[in-house]
Amino acid sequence: MLPKKPSVTIKDIAKRTGYSANTVSHALRDKDDISEATKKKIREIAREMGYVNNALAASLRLGYTNTIAVILGDVSNPHFSIMMKEIEMHARGFGYSSFLLNTNEDEALESAAIKTALQKNVDGIIICPTQKSDRNLEFLRTLNLPFVLIGRRNPIDRYVACNDELGGYLATKALLDAGHRRILLLHAPTYISSSKERLEGYRRAYKEAGIQVPEGLIREVEVTSQDIEDVLSQLDRDGENYTAIFAFSDMLAWNAWSCLLRRGKSVPQDCSLVGFDNIQSRMRFPFDLTSISSHKGKMSVEAVNVLLRQIRGGEDGAGQVVIDTTLAQGCTVAPPQL
Amino acid sequence: MLPKKPSVTIKDIAKRTGYSANTVSHALRDKDDISEATKKKIREIAREMGYVNNALAASLRLGYTNTIAVILGDVSNPHFSIMMKEIEMHARGFGYSSFLLNTNEDEALESAAIKTALQKNVDGIIICPTQKSDRNLEFLRTLNLPFVLIGRRNPIDRYVACNDELGGYLATKALLDAGHRRILLLHAPTYISSSKERLEGYRRAYKEAGIQVPEGLIREVEVTSQDIEDVLSQLDRDGENYTAIFAFSDMLAWNAWSCLLRRGKSVPQDCSLVGFDNIQSRMRFPFDLTSISSHKGKMSVEAVNVLLRQIRGGEDGAGQVVIDTTLAQGCTVAPPQL
Repeated sequence: MLPKKPSVTIKDIAKRTGYSANTVSHALRDKDDISEATKKKIREIAREMGYVNNALAASLRLGYTNTIAVILGDVSNPHFSIMMKEIEMHARGFGYSSFLLNTNEDEALESAAIKTALQKNVDGIIICPTQKSDRNLEFLRTLNLPFVLIGRRNPIDRYVACNDELGGYLATKALLDAGHRRILLLHAPTYISSSKERLEGYRRAYKEAGIQVPEGLIREVEVTSQDIEDVLSQLDRDGENYTAIFAFSDMLAWNAWSCLLRRGKSVPQDCSLVGFDNIQSRMRFPFDLTSISSHKGKMSVEAVNVLLRQIRGGEDGAGQVVIDTTLAQGCTVAPPQL
Repeated sequence: MLPKKPSVTIKDIAKRTGYSANTVSHALRDKDDISEATKKKIREIAREMGYVNNALAASLRLGYTNTIAVILGDVSNPHFSIMMKEIEMHARGFGYSSFLLNTNEDEALESAAIKTALQKNVDGIIICPTQKSDRNLEFLRTLNLPFVLIGRRNPIDRYVACNDELGGYLATKALLDAGHRRILLLHAPTYISSSKERLEGYRRAYKEAGIQVPEGLIREVEVTSQDIEDVLSQLDRDGENYTAIFAFSDMLAWNAWSCLLRRGKSVPQDCSLVGFDNIQSRMRFPFDLTSISSHKGKMSVEAVNVLLRQIRGGEDGAGQVVIDTTLAQGCTVAPPQL
C-alpha cells in the first residue's frame, strides 16, 4: 500500500533524463521557458518513475481547491472526533472544506490516506502521524505541500501539540502527592512522541519526589486497545502490585476502570486513576475522571491557523506550537489504602 | 445563510427566458442540440436567478469526482463519530473520499453545508437532516444529485434508519417488565423522525401493558443539550416523580445519570436508566448502561451502498432501509424501590 518509490526526487528525474534539476523542475511546474516536447518527455519519465499521482499532482496543482485533508488515528475516539469537529468548523469559517481520513494507527492506511489527499488536490494536510516509522512523513516532506502535525511531533515538521511532558508530570505528581508510590503507567508505544514525552514527565515527577521509578509498572499497550484485561492479568502474574493507574487516554482509563470493577476493586477507594485528554470537558459522565486537559479545541484551531498561514504564504508565524496541559480535577484520586 | 432562492427550477428559468423547459434543461446540461449562443444566454439568466453555484454546478458536473459529503449533527458525539468512521472507511474501499460537514443541528449551517458540498462537486451526499423544516431537503430534491438520509427519515427520500419505534418500544417494555410505571421519557423535538417514532414505541409499550401513559413525564430536550439539570428541576417543581428514565441518546442518559448522582440517587437502585445508541459496543466504560442498539455500523455501510447504487446508476435496489433495533442489556435496570 505504500506509494511506489516515495523517495523519487527532482534530482532522480534529472539523472535519468539527462536534463538539469532546474529544467526538470520547470518542466514539472509547466513553466514557459521549457519547450512542450521537453516537458512531455520529462513528465513521461517522471510518471514512469512513480512521481506522477503524488508529487507531480502536488507540483502541478491547478490553483487552490480550498480543501484540506485531516488524517487522524481513529475518529470514533472522542479525543479525535472533538478535534475533527473543531478543525472542520474553524476551517469552514475560512472557506475550507475538510476531507476526513482514518488511519486506524496503521502505517499502510496512513500512506494510502496521504495518496488520496494528493489525488484530491488538497491545499494542505493536518495529520496525527502514526510515527511507527518516519517513512510517510519523509514522503510528505518531498511534496512541497503544506502540512501540520497535530497532537504528535518531531523536530523537523510544523506541529501543534500539547505539552505532553508536563501532562505526564502533573498526572504523576497528583498521584505521588496523594501518597501513592506504585503508580502503574499504561502508556502507548514510545515511537509515538506524546507517549515518550509523558513517560519523561512520569520519570521527572518521581525524580523530584526522590522516589525510585517502579520500572516493572511501566507497561506498553496499543493506542487502539479495546481491552487491557491481558495487561492487568500479566501484572498479577508478575506479582507487581499498584495502588494507582495513570493511563495514556481517557478511553484507556475507562477501560482500566471497568477491568478493576470486574476484579471487585473500587475507584478511587482501592485504586486511584488518572486519564489524559479530559474528554469530559465536552461530555457529562456519571463519574468524574481526573484527567489531563490537552486543550483540544485550542490545538485544533491553532493547527488550522498554522496550516492556513503556510497555504496562503506571506508571514510564516510560529510553526511549532506547544500548548500547556493542565490537571482536570475529578473524583478518581484518593490516598492509597494502608 | 440559506441558499438564495432554493426553489429556482428549470421551469422558472424557462418562464423567464422564454425557452422551453426541455431547451433549458439541455442548455444547462451542455447538450449538443442547443447552440452555444442560446446556452450562454440561458446560463447567464440561470446564474442571475441564483441557480448557479448550486444546482447549475450539480447539473453541469464534469464527470465524477469520487467524493461524497457526509453532513452530520455533531461529530463530537460518539454516535455520529462511529458512523462517520464506518462511512469513511467503507466509502474509501470503493475509491470515494468523504468530506465531513457539521450542522450542530442548525438549519442555516445545514444549508451552508449543502452549498459547500455542491461547490465541491461531490457525487452524492449522506445526511442526517436537522428536520426543523423541510426546506433544505426540498432544495436537495431539486438538484438531481444522489443523496441518502441516515438515522432520520421521511416518506419521500431515500434513507437508512434504524427501527426507532421498535427501539422505543423495547426500552419502555424492559422498564415496564421490571415493574416501573412512571417512566420519564427524555426525548428530542418530535420534528425529528427518530424522536417521534421512539415516542410512538413508548406509547405502544404502555398500551400493550394496559397502563395509562404518564403524559406529564414526556419531556422534550434539545438534541445538543449539554445539561438537563433544568429539565429535572422542572419535574421536581411540577411534582412529577419517576422511578426510571428512558433517554433519547446515551449521551443524554449519562448526563441524566450525573444529575441523579448529584441528587444523591443511585442507578439503578433509586432510578433505572435506559439510553439509545449503545455506544458501549465500541467503548468500554466502567458502567454498563442498558441501551438500544441502532446497529450504527450496519446503518453506515448500508447508507454508503444505497448512495453508491444511485451514483453508479443501474440497479436501484432498496432505497428505504430500516434496520431492526435490539435491547443491549446493561446493569442500569432494576425493579423500582417500594
